[in-house]
Amino acid sequence: MSLLVVGTVAFDSIHTPFGKVEKTVGGAATYIALSASFFTKNTGIVSVVGEDFPETTLHKLKKQNINIDGLQIIKGGKSFYWSGKYHEDLNNRDTLVTELNVLADFNPVVPKQYLDADFLMLGNLTPAVQQSVINQMSKRPKLIVLDTMNFWMESMPQELAKTISMVDVLTVNDAEARQLSGEYSLVKAAKKILKMGPKYLIIKKGEHGALLFDNKQVFFAPAIPLEEVFDPTGAGDSFAGGFIGYLDKTKDISFDNMKRAVIFGSAAASFCVEKFGIDRLLEISDDEMHDRIKEFINLVQFDIQL
Amino acid sequence: MSLLVVGTVAFDSIHTPFGKVEKTVGGAATYIALSASFFTKNTGIVSVVGEDFPETTLHKLKKQNINIDGLQIIKGGKSFYWSGKYHEDLNNRDTLVTELNVLADFNPVVPKQYLDADFLMLGNLTPAVQQSVINQMSKRPKLIVLDTMNFWMESMPQELAKTISMVDVLTVNDAEARQLSGEYSLVKAAKKILKMGPKYLIIKKGEHGALLFDNKQVFFAPAIPLEEVFDPTGAGDSFAGGFIGYLDKTKDISFDNMKRAVIFGSAAASFCVEKFGIDRLLEISDDEMHDRIKEFINLVQFDIQL
Repeated sequence: MSLLVVGTVAFDSIHTPFGKVEKTVGGAATYIALSASFFTKNTGIVSVVGEDFPETTLHKLKKQNINIDGLQIIKGGKSFYWSGKYHEDLNNRDTLVTELNVLADFNPVVPKQYLDADFLMLGNLTPAVQQSVINQMSKRPKLIVLDTMNFWMESMPQELAKTISMVDVLTVNDAEARQLSGEYSLVKAAKKILKMGPKYLIIKKGEHGALLFDNKQVFFAPAIPLEEVFDPTGAGDSFAGGFIGYLDKTKDISFDNMKRAVIFGSAAASFCVEKFGIDRLLEISDDEMHDRIKEFINLVQFDIQL
Repeated sequence: MSLLVVGTVAFDSIHTPFGKVEKTVGGAATYIALSASFFTKNTGIVSVVGEDFPETTLHKLKKQNINIDGLQIIKGGKSFYWSGKYHEDLNNRDTLVTELNVLADFNPVVPKQYLDADFLMLGNLTPAVQQSVINQMSKRPKLIVLDTMNFWMESMPQELAKTISMVDVLTVNDAEARQLSGEYSLVKAAKKILKMGPKYLIIKKGEHGALLFDNKQVFFAPAIPLEEVFDPTGAGDSFAGGFIGYLDKTKDISFDNMKRAVIFGSAAASFCVEKFGIDRLLEISDDEMHDRIKEFINLVQFDIQL
C-alpha cells in the first residue's frame, strides 16, 4: 500500500440550516480515504468501529479500492458517534453529543502490508495514537500529513507538540492556527508553527479557501463560490484526502506539485459539501472533476504582463 | 477630466489594536482619488469640507494631480467627522462618533470640465446625492461605479434601489450583499443584485479577498496575506480607487480587464492598510506596485494541464 490513512470511522448526526440527518456514516478516515480514492487506488485505512457499523458501508469502501484490513471491528462494541448543529453561516457549529465508544480504547495496529507506505495521513485523533502509528512504520514515509484540532491544543498541548514535531505537513483551520501560535496574523502564525517542526503548513479557511505555507512561499486556493453549501461536515477531511491522494498518485512532493494538490483537495471538498455525509464523494466522475478544476482556473486566472 | 470621484472628504479618529490616531484626514473620496491617482492623472473630486480642513492636505491632493475645483470649502463650517474602534479581528468595527457637519447640507455641483467624464465613481454617500451627480452629467459616462453601505439599506432602501438601478458596477461587502439580497449564499445574492440593475457586482470580503460577478462569470482575487494589518480604514475605498483608476488608464471595460483592475485595486488596498490613514497611499512607488502584483501572481498561480 502506498497511502495509509489513520483516523475515525464513525456515525454522525448532522443538523444544518437545510435539513438534518441521523446517524449517517462519517469520520475523518472515511472522508479522507474516499476523497483520496478518486486519485489513487492504493489506500488503506487504520481505524476502529463497533459491531453496529453497517456492512454495506464496508463494501462501499472496498468498492473504491480502499483496503480495510487495518479496520478493527470490536464485537459488541459501538462505533464513535458525533452529533452537531451548524449555524446559519456554516463556518461555526455546536457539538451536541460526542460518544467515544470503541475509540476510547483504540490501539491502532498497522498491518504488515502498510508498514512501508510512502504517504501517511494522520486524521484527527488523540496525538498519542497518531504517534503510535508513526512509530510502527518500518521506514519513514516520504510525507506525513497531520490533521488535528483545538480540542487537543487545549487538553494535551505537549503530546500534540510532540506529534507536530514528527510530521512534514500540518493542516489546521484559521482559528486553530491562531490558537496554536498565539498570533492573530496568519502570516505570523505560520512562521511560528513552521518552527515547531513541519516543513509545510496548510491553513483551511472554509468558504474562504486555503493557504499553503513553507518557509519561503505562500500559495492560496479559493473555495469555489457555491450556490448551496448543503453540509460542510467532512470538507476539511475531503480536502486533506484529495491533497494527499493527488501527491500519492503523482509521487512528487515539490512545492509546485503541492499547489496542484491543494487545488485538487479544494475540488474534492467542494464536491463533499454538496450533499449530506459521504454521499457526494462516492459519485464524482472524471468529467465533473475536470469541469471543477476548470472552474478553479477561471476563478483566479488573470493576465497581467509585468 | 476623465475620472470623476464623488464622496466624503473628512476627519477620522481611528483606534486599532495597534494604536490610535486622532482627527487624521480620511473620507471615501480622499482614499478613492489618492488610490486612483497612482494609475491615472485625470482625476477630479466633488465633495465638501469645512474651513477646518488643512491646506496642507489640499496641496497633497493637488500634488497627486487630483483636481479639487469641485471641492466646496464652507466658510465657518466643520468637516465631516467619524470616529471608530476596530475589534481584534479588524473585520469588525464600532462607530463611536459620526458628525455630519457640512455634509448635512451638501449639494454637489459638478464643475463644467467634469460633466463629460468617462468614468464616474460614486463613493459612499446619501443615495440622493449620488443620483444628483449622475443627473448632472452632460453625457452618460462609459462606466459608473457605486459604493454604498448597510446604513442606506436600512434607512432609505427605495432611494438606494433607484441609485443602484442607474449604475454599471456595485461594490459592497459580504454582509451588505447578504443584507441587500436577503440571501446568505453570495452566489445567490449576486444573482439577485444583478437583477436590480448593475451589470457587475464586486463583493469585498476584507482579508478574504474580493469577488467580481457578471451574469455569466465570477472572478476571485485574494487579499495578500500580510504580516501586519495596521489600519483597515479606507481599504475598501482604496480598492475602488485602484479598480476605477486602472480602468480609466486603460479605457477597457471588458470582463478580462476588470479582472486586472480588481487585482490592482486589491494591491492598492494592501498598501493602504500598512499605515494609519492615507499616509501609505501617498508614497507607493512603481517598483513597490510591480513587486506587489508579482506577489499576487505567485500567490494564486498554479499549473494544471487539463
